[in-house]
Amino acid sequence: MEFLKGVSKKETAEIFELLTEYKIGSTVKVNGAVHALRDMGSVVFVVLRKREGLLQCIYEKEKAGFALKNVREGAAIEAEGVLENSKKAPGGIEIALRALTVLSEPVEPPPIPIGKQKMNISLETNLNLRPISLRNLKERAKFKLQEGIVRGFREFLHGQGFTEIHTPKIGEKGAEGGANIFKLDYFHQPAVLAQSPQFYKQMMVGVFDRVFETAPVFRAEKHNTKRHLNEYTSLDLEMGYIDSFMDIMAMETGVLQHSMALLARDYKAELELLGVTLPKVDAIPYVRFDEAKRLVSEKYGRPIKNPYDLEPEEEVLIGRYMKEEYGADFVFVTHYPSKKRPFYAMDDPTDPVFTLSFDCLFDGMEITTGGQRIHDYAMLLQKIAARGMSEEGMEHYLMAFKHGMPPHGGLGIGLERLTMRLVGEDNVRETTLFPRDLSRLAP
Amino acid sequence: MEFLKGVSKKETAEIFELLTEYKIGSTVKVNGAVHALRDMGSVVFVVLRKREGLLQCIYEKEKAGFALKNVREGAAIEAEGVLENSKKAPGGIEIALRALTVLSEPVEPPPIPIGKQKMNISLETNLNLRPISLRNLKERAKFKLQEGIVRGFREFLHGQGFTEIHTPKIGEKGAEGGANIFKLDYFHQPAVLAQSPQFYKQMMVGVFDRVFETAPVFRAEKHNTKRHLNEYTSLDLEMGYIDSFMDIMAMETGVLQHSMALLARDYKAELELLGVTLPKVDAIPYVRFDEAKRLVSEKYGRPIKNPYDLEPEEEVLIGRYMKEEYGADFVFVTHYPSKKRPFYAMDDPTDPVFTLSFDCLFDGMEITTGGQRIHDYAMLLQKIAARGMSEEGMEHYLMAFKHGMPPHGGLGIGLERLTMRLVGEDNVRETTLFPRDLSRLAP
Repeated sequence: MEFLKGVSKKETAEIFELLTEYKIGSTVKVNGAVHALRDMGSVVFVVLRKREGLLQCIYEKEKAGFALKNVREGAAIEAEGVLENSKKAPGGIEIALRALTVLSEPVEPPPIPIGKQKMNISLETNLNLRPISLRNLKERAKFKLQEGIVRGFREFLHGQGFTEIHTPKIGEKGAEGGANIFKLDYFHQPAVLAQSPQFYKQMMVGVFDRVFETAPVFRAEKHNTKRHLNEYTSLDLEMGYIDSFMDIMAMETGVLQHSMALLARDYKAELELLGVTLPKVDAIPYVRFDEAKRLVSEKYGRPIKNPYDLEPEEEVLIGRYMKEEYGADFVFVTHYPSKKRPFYAMDDPTDPVFTLSFDCLFDGMEITTGGQRIHDYAMLLQKIAARGMSEEGMEHYLMAFKHGMPPHGGLGIGLERLTMRLVGEDNVRETTLFPRDLSRLAP
Repeated sequence: MEFLKGVSKKETAEIFELLTEYKIGSTVKVNGAVHALRDMGSVVFVVLRKREGLLQCIYEKEKAGFALKNVREGAAIEAEGVLENSKKAPGGIEIALRALTVLSEPVEPPPIPIGKQKMNISLETNLNLRPISLRNLKERAKFKLQEGIVRGFREFLHGQGFTEIHTPKIGEKGAEGGANIFKLDYFHQPAVLAQSPQFYKQMMVGVFDRVFETAPVFRAEKHNTKRHLNEYTSLDLEMGYIDSFMDIMAMETGVLQHSMALLARDYKAELELLGVTLPKVDAIPYVRFDEAKRLVSEKYGRPIKNPYDLEPEEEVLIGRYMKEEYGADFVFVTHYPSKKRPFYAMDDPTDPVFTLSFDCLFDGMEITTGGQRIHDYAMLLQKIAARGMSEEGMEHYLMAFKHGMPPHGGLGIGLERLTMRLVGEDNVRETTLFPRDLSRLAP
């Protein structure tokens, strides 16, 4: 019988290995996709796209000892050569080719100039050609940063005693309600796709105290805007034994601090490539909803139309205000009106017109909604009744409260929106690997 | 303006803080849910359920200086007391109560004995009362181990240069095909729920070389067995520039080694509570499909009914064989028949009746399916045609190949099944937080 004993070192070197483990002058094996091919006459530059970035190979006929043919952009190759210093090449190194094997050939050249810094294509083209357009280094870099945000979220929360959970995305009809729900047939039973893991994460506070989930959520919203998706990745957390809803905002501040520090440490190349300056997260201002409205109304001369609603334009102004007055990129807007929040939101006992809830705005756009939840069974029933809602479909949710739940609260961060603001895009589709909107179901 | 500066230390201590930061004899504040209440006459034991485990508090009327009333099982409380040694208490410590505040009261006592080691309830009751039954420490511990498996998966792959991706779960109809697909109406377009991230993760190999995803997948399978779910968490990876499909199995071996080491390090309490012995992962045997069938047929005198199919009973025997002969808990069964694998599977060039694919069995049950994929555009078209399939709905998938894809392969691990085998359960619902099956859509 033969056995596998784990991952062994590859013969082919990755870029970090070329930079740290190999001496200049040594013969190395590498592989990658031909990202660009530049024939300069006497020499040919074969630039490889590798997962860490670009690696330049140089072909000089006499030295190489083989004929360079059948190598095209898009081919996957394996090459052998001598590691050399090269001031102009990425990372300051290049490979002087001695042998080359084509592992896989493309049938057609790329339909867009993926080898260029800027592709100058429309968003529509970019999305239609997603499997190819993402091969562009800048496109790809956005999703490396997105990965870093999620890593930071999980790492920080794990360190804070949170447990990761996986809750179902198919559920009974009618649990959370609302019109924006995708319906499906589940073995002849009506079912819906989860708009959020709200009920589940709350129930799990009674089990694990602190939980988080990073998973898709589904919203059948019919508006086609630059900031809405019909499926997105929600970074959810829920925590018990809070002293006040300030604890939840403090936790998000910690998450953001950790994620940004992680990006600064591990994603330097991507930040540089995209020209991203990390936002300020050492101190995040918080301001009441009504106060925020008043502040921007006064400063920017914008009359308050509806005291119980925050329009996107007002969010932008609040962001602008915080940036101008305090150099802040993020702001917590607290005490949203009860009417605008779901039934499970905890009303402010000192003024029940408002709730102990918040949104977090990044650069003037909502990236997080959160708040304290009702933990008392009787109060929850009362609120459900007062809203004219039915308890039907909420039996299991209510069960958790009937048998005891600690004071708790939580939040959900829209991953694609946070990434969008971080990299300075103005359309959330730019920072979604494969966006789903009113008219887009593919790729 | 006021600012949030991150997470500050709580006044209340967690168990690890009591064990490492506080001196015996010091006054401490703690909180938790009353897991058990034992009135011994002269003293009352108030056992708190905290996220790390149980914490015993002891109430002695004279010393306490307050009357213990209105404290019931299920209540969330905050307490102050003196940290004392106690040989019989969990962790060897207890809190001699001096003050107690009820944060939240239950309305009814728990319908099942969650404070007991073994609840002795049926699986049906357990699942119907999931928000409560998970409060039992053994139930909860299973999902802590599950968390550890996922952490290990991600941590290891991140270290191996993989990028985490988030791919859409709603997609165009007909992409991957098959009957076991949930259908839904997407703004008057027919859409389906993803059976797997297969196409997306392959396309992303052309972008990131190595990718992984940990996300829900949906299977509208109509069989109701102990090992099938209609929604489960799939741990997927896909990697480019493989030398052979052995690389993929080696990667899974690495993942399992890392996850088990992580469990041994960080989840001792849960392993002990559940009596779990970690499986052997230092060397995992691999054996051809046809050879495995022959071996168990010979050893256990079971005639081979169908040479191209592996029945669950045969899987069990292969597991038994590997355990008896080599003390192995896992085994890779390789070279599954081409007929039984999807069109994108790479046929073995030396014998195209079989594929360069594998299943990983844990204790005689399939927990992983994987293999090398076709990377050549022409070969892929040929295979699609040979199967009488249509390219319709696969345009974007095929686009990736048309413009060049490296040799690659990958795998998908069923998280709940792996957890099930790890903790020795015989029904996958036992290790699913909120299972979805033919008859279960709630909670």
